[in-house]
Amino acid sequence: MHPLASGQHPGAQRRRIGDAVVTALADGYLDLGPQTVPATDWNDLVPLLDTPFATADAYRSSINAFLVETGGRRILIDAGGAQSGIGSLGRLGSTLAAIGIGPETVDALLITHLHPDHAGGAFDETGAATFERAEMILHTGEHAHWHDDTLVTDANRGYVELARKAVVAYAREGRLTLFDSDSEVAPGLFAEFLPGHTPGHTGYRIESGNDALLIWGDIVHIPPVQMKRPEIGIAFDSDGAQAEVTRRRILERAVTERLKIAGMHMPWPGIGHVERDGTGYRFVTAPHDYGTGHP
Amino acid sequence: MHPLASGQHPGAQRRRIGDAVVTALADGYLDLGPQTVPATDWNDLVPLLDTPFATADAYRSSINAFLVETGGRRILIDAGGAQSGIGSLGRLGSTLAAIGIGPETVDALLITHLHPDHAGGAFDETGAATFERAEMILHTGEHAHWHDDTLVTDANRGYVELARKAVVAYAREGRLTLFDSDSEVAPGLFAEFLPGHTPGHTGYRIESGNDALLIWGDIVHIPPVQMKRPEIGIAFDSDGAQAEVTRRRILERAVTERLKIAGMHMPWPGIGHVERDGTGYRFVTAPHDYGTGHP
Repeated sequence: MHPLASGQHPGAQRRRIGDAVVTALADGYLDLGPQTVPATDWNDLVPLLDTPFATADAYRSSINAFLVETGGRRILIDAGGAQSGIGSLGRLGSTLAAIGIGPETVDALLITHLHPDHAGGAFDETGAATFERAEMILHTGEHAHWHDDTLVTDANRGYVELARKAVVAYAREGRLTLFDSDSEVAPGLFAEFLPGHTPGHTGYRIESGNDALLIWGDIVHIPPVQMKRPEIGIAFDSDGAQAEVTRRRILERAVTERLKIAGMHMPWPGIGHVERDGTGYRFVTAPHDYGTGHP
Repeated sequence: MHPLASGQHPGAQRRRIGDAVVTALADGYLDLGPQTVPATDWNDLVPLLDTPFATADAYRSSINAFLVETGGRRILIDAGGAQSGIGSLGRLGSTLAAIGIGPETVDALLITHLHPDHAGGAFDETGAATFERAEMILHTGEHAHWHDDTLVTDANRGYVELARKAVVAYAREGRLTLFDSDSEVAPGLFAEFLPGHTPGHTGYRIESGNDALLIWGDIVHIPPVQMKRPEIGIAFDSDGAQAEVTRRRILERAVTERLKIAGMHMPWPGIGHVERDGTGYRFVTAPHDYGTGHP
């Protein structure tokens, strides 16, 4: 009799993009149910969600972040949700430790947007910056949105407080950089403004050699539903109509330009490409990169 | 400046099937090109293979094995190809070590068939059994096929020698068990005879509680091609017509019975389900099991 093996597997998968190495980091998951798509009859979605491995009660959405190593620099894109108070998030720190990446070695933290599952791992329980040397890099519009007191409501107060805690942890040490147009925000990393989900929602495109990868942030949250039916938004969109315009534009561009894409809520490890599927699209997970993913 | 992180990620992914834990183990890959589907014009396959992450020159096919922990026993299904002489195989041993599974703790080695990428890790470079306490369990027809001297040719001699070395490593110590009908070959593990790829090719179905997983061995080798066009066989099939009958039967059954399936050549980590896609099928990788896959 053997006990069940207890050694668990850290959530990290590496692949090369040109000379850069991109490591998908699993922070955890969120179970998204009918309340997250209030404008849609959930019963219509059951055929898209009910599989041998899942029920249609809720979609278990991955929470991914991505570490980019390029030009001798370590750049983290999003930080997971450790301080969000959501128990199914917050594994990014232990995963980084398991693969030998100390938080003090991260040079820059690029933020797609300031929601709790993306910025909640940027600071620790004392409010200090998790990445003690990193520059936080963020879209001006995203910064402004979460610092506008006129927008605070009882409903969003928790989100606002978390967003501000994440920013101030870096700003008070002079390590906050804002940008307001598509530009190269770190060597080989280009910001792409993708508004709608939040006012400053931003994707980041890695370019190295002849290769590229667009990390698209939160273009979709429930891939089997929103890829097939891009008109369906998510309750967390701050501007649903704008989010749909952006979503449709990026999905179509991904097909026509044969983009490699990565998403914070795409099925772990979150990297793949988009194919047309009837009147919608589908996501195809990238083949495993045996060249860099293994001992 | 940081050096690129060198800590690599072992190829192991766990998930629960009922009370059992199934760990996918990456042994490596094989690049399968036009010579592996001689009956088909490779040019017809280009649209199925050419993606942003791959070219159509050859399909990089995963080599997976699966460890099943159930009822206090550790049962390995296939052993990868360490002694095959193929450099892109043979990582299973280091992966098992990385997750704390000593070879001496494996109770049984279930073989789907005796090809080099499945049996080549059953013995070491001295010819000794890799799993020094394990019972090798194998279909009678598979054993007979590879021990029939009348079938040896110059073309298959290497395969025959490897198959025999794998078997004798266990047989000479009285640790070989043969079976000749669908039966429970280990607690909760049921053999299913799936002939065609080889005369004794066998799948193994794990049953635990209300859950089940069929590990289907080599039903397909080039998933994007053979799922969509099940009439296409692989050069390694010993009886192509029978392999096609079996392949079509299992693919159709997987859809109608909503089977969870795992395959030795399905995209890493090799576990998912089958959906209908036009006149063929497609494979959908299972969502990640966050419950058992992470620190």
